[in-house]
Amino acid sequence: MAKNLTKRSEDYSKWYNELVLKADLAENSGVRGCMVIKPYGYAIWEKMQAQLDKMFKETGHQNAYFPIFIPKSYLSREASHVEGFAKECAVVTHYRLKNAPDGSGIVVDETAKLEEELIVRPTSETIIWDTYRKWIQSYRDLPLLINQWANVVRWEMRTRLFLRTAEFLWQEGHTAHAEKQEAIDEAELILRIYSTFAEEYMAVPVIQGTKTASERFAGAVETYCIEGLMQDGKALQAGTSHFLGQNFARAFDVKFDNQEGVQDYVWATSWGVSTRLVGALIMTHSDDNGLVLPPKLAPIQVVIIPIYKGLDQRKAIAEKIDPLLKELRESGISVKYDDRDTHKPGFKFNEYELKGVPIRLAVGQRDLDNGTCEIARRDTLEKVTVKDEDVVSRIRFLLEDIQEQIFKKAEAFRDDHITKVDSYEEFKDLLETKGGFFLAHWDGSAETEERIKEETKATIRCIPLTPDTEPGNCMVTGKPSARRVLFAKAY
Amino acid sequence: MAKNLTKRSEDYSKWYNELVLKADLAENSGVRGCMVIKPYGYAIWEKMQAQLDKMFKETGHQNAYFPIFIPKSYLSREASHVEGFAKECAVVTHYRLKNAPDGSGIVVDETAKLEEELIVRPTSETIIWDTYRKWIQSYRDLPLLINQWANVVRWEMRTRLFLRTAEFLWQEGHTAHAEKQEAIDEAELILRIYSTFAEEYMAVPVIQGTKTASERFAGAVETYCIEGLMQDGKALQAGTSHFLGQNFARAFDVKFDNQEGVQDYVWATSWGVSTRLVGALIMTHSDDNGLVLPPKLAPIQVVIIPIYKGLDQRKAIAEKIDPLLKELRESGISVKYDDRDTHKPGFKFNEYELKGVPIRLAVGQRDLDNGTCEIARRDTLEKVTVKDEDVVSRIRFLLEDIQEQIFKKAEAFRDDHITKVDSYEEFKDLLETKGGFFLAHWDGSAETEERIKEETKATIRCIPLTPDTEPGNCMVTGKPSARRVLFAKAY
Repeated sequence: MAKNLTKRSEDYSKWYNELVLKADLAENSGVRGCMVIKPYGYAIWEKMQAQLDKMFKETGHQNAYFPIFIPKSYLSREASHVEGFAKECAVVTHYRLKNAPDGSGIVVDETAKLEEELIVRPTSETIIWDTYRKWIQSYRDLPLLINQWANVVRWEMRTRLFLRTAEFLWQEGHTAHAEKQEAIDEAELILRIYSTFAEEYMAVPVIQGTKTASERFAGAVETYCIEGLMQDGKALQAGTSHFLGQNFARAFDVKFDNQEGVQDYVWATSWGVSTRLVGALIMTHSDDNGLVLPPKLAPIQVVIIPIYKGLDQRKAIAEKIDPLLKELRESGISVKYDDRDTHKPGFKFNEYELKGVPIRLAVGQRDLDNGTCEIARRDTLEKVTVKDEDVVSRIRFLLEDIQEQIFKKAEAFRDDHITKVDSYEEFKDLLETKGGFFLAHWDGSAETEERIKEETKATIRCIPLTPDTEPGNCMVTGKPSARRVLFAKAY
Repeated sequence: MAKNLTKRSEDYSKWYNELVLKADLAENSGVRGCMVIKPYGYAIWEKMQAQLDKMFKETGHQNAYFPIFIPKSYLSREASHVEGFAKECAVVTHYRLKNAPDGSGIVVDETAKLEEELIVRPTSETIIWDTYRKWIQSYRDLPLLINQWANVVRWEMRTRLFLRTAEFLWQEGHTAHAEKQEAIDEAELILRIYSTFAEEYMAVPVIQGTKTASERFAGAVETYCIEGLMQDGKALQAGTSHFLGQNFARAFDVKFDNQEGVQDYVWATSWGVSTRLVGALIMTHSDDNGLVLPPKLAPIQVVIIPIYKGLDQRKAIAEKIDPLLKELRESGISVKYDDRDTHKPGFKFNEYELKGVPIRLAVGQRDLDNGTCEIARRDTLEKVTVKDEDVVSRIRFLLEDIQEQIFKKAEAFRDDHITKVDSYEEFKDLLETKGGFFLAHWDGSAETEERIKEETKATIRCIPLTPDTEPGNCMVTGKPSARRVLFAKAY
């Protein structure tokens, strides 16, 4: 399998697009902006889902399912939400097709027009809070900790596989609380879960912070986020968690009797991560040879390739490998034995390199003679020959080590690309020549934020949660600034 | 918790609707025909998904994800498919909303009209086969064994929670094969998986068969199905598996080079089960006290309720129960300890009876004194007092026994309601007085089938797979019939 992958240094964007296609992760469909997630890409998403779902359930959340359609009027209820979401949407106006009178095919039946248009959900706050009104009467009904795994649609004009698609898959949590602080705690708990997931499972280091007012979720009082850094020096928002105050409770009239019997509006959060995470995973670790996957999320953790001539050798290798396969599988390691006769070992080596399988074992006649296997790790491409009796422990070690090393590598890259700047000139210069995150002073005004965005395409990714009380002066206006914020160009 | 559940004998349909609501399984939403699946109902669906997904993967299938939208023209490609599915659909015609000029809210932006309307998928054969054309060139690319977990929309006029909703959740398998027989084998393999799942997990006995031509899936050459019998004597189709021949391959021009290098169209199957299964589960086992859930699919298998006065007793019971909880959880049994102080034991007993929790343990002062627990099984409502040291083994036994007994009970009911009839008068009479399945001779014509349906509302549920070569005469026309077929009124 010839890879012919564009090099990252030549054209990072092209490298990414080619890699997604060549590694069989996803492709564009016949529907504008909608992707087909292929089995290998979907298997990564399934691993992500399983881990996140476990973390949500361990913290008391339950799954449920709400309708895909939202009546148009629901979107208008929350004033800032409508500005953010009632724009580029898929609008259902009719509910029937019929044969064209001229026999040319099928056409929309104009008599089957909906009284009120339905919007394919871009996010579900409105339909969910309309439902919560029926579920919540008393403090005894709270907290309500619900998550939904679903598809959503936002009619994006410029789309890229995984990173920005018209339809995408995600989870959206929607919680209701009796107390303001409890809701804030929930939004922060979820941020920590997202951060732990990104760092410990995706091996993607992230910076936790809050968004500025202009970058907040439409309808939120506070938006928490995690920001990762891709290899081209651009930031990627990997997850958001919103404290919604009482905005949606007011919009949908969701009140409860508190312990003192006094009525109050319910406090809310919402939070989500999406198939965009697959894009973040690809862009953080992969190299010019293809994908590099963290062992904890790799659909295949170990691939074993026999190198043989003739049936006798093939059989001898299979007999050697059989107990190993069994032992690995029994200990929960996902292993594939690829003895396809239709492809040569070199082709297979390339294929699994391209697909980012963390560990590759190769076994040939010499290994049969010597009682060994050749083990290669995908991240560094290092190969070692290991005695049969040490293979399992070596694999266990490598699964942990690769997980750790690719995180460290990404973290070192990220840390090398956090630059403190004090002048706007330096900022603009380094943004183009070095890229990455910039910690700079900002006067806190939306005008300055907008000016920087227009002039440099960089945005404030977040106000980091890490304590920072060193005051200074805005790099643009010179006005006082209480602390530095994090800038970057972003996906 | 007062149940106030309508009795099945009074009004079966009302009983079902009330039960779904009162047991917190699902409810209607603000969107016509679309339901909200509540956490308890969704937890049952998750258990179903997990088991089916395992069975699909064990037989070599992989998951993927295809777009929710289907371009209108795709639906027209396969002639009989369009007749079946291009009717009551949700049609997306626009992709933008805007503020109404008069400030009255938001309206559809008429300038943002799609060139070609998009249909919210009612099923995905068309978009998937349009994709498969790109994936399949050679016999080496086959078989392609893909499944998708997704939401679909069919604009049903009369809807009922779980049984028939405009939007529902399902899995849809779509496979491609080089050989006709291999595709038929696949459709039959899936039918066996569905049947095993229904009987061994849902504890719902089913009859396997094939549909008549007029009941076939639109675009199929053969439709296999499993049919269950509900307690009101009506049948429910619980799953279908279709052999599609080369129909979709022709419609979407999907050809491959076979081993001899000759081009041929690909052979296809598709198959699905949906959230309708939750409805089948409810209607098969539940009684006038509420849900009865099979232990293998119950979100909570065992509930433990302390009966105490004062904190000391509560604490003493908690200490007694703690190691039991630990032991049960460690052995994979889902157990809930409900020591809420806000509700009385009687309320809780009712609640878990309503929710169909298979086993209830109650522990009070007398049990503390005697070293016992009271164990009640939901299916028969029998209670026994068990020595502490026997509790775990008793629970293990009951989980298996309840699973087995509710299957046997449903099977006995079903077998009592399979009636052989030889005259149309007898058929019509027993259909009204006894209900259930009827094995009768039919002349094989669509006309007779249609006449029976019009006159009695009964349909041919299937031509059972069980060997039956006893010839006879059609109960309506007297024409010769090679074998009996299975009639029933159905959901």
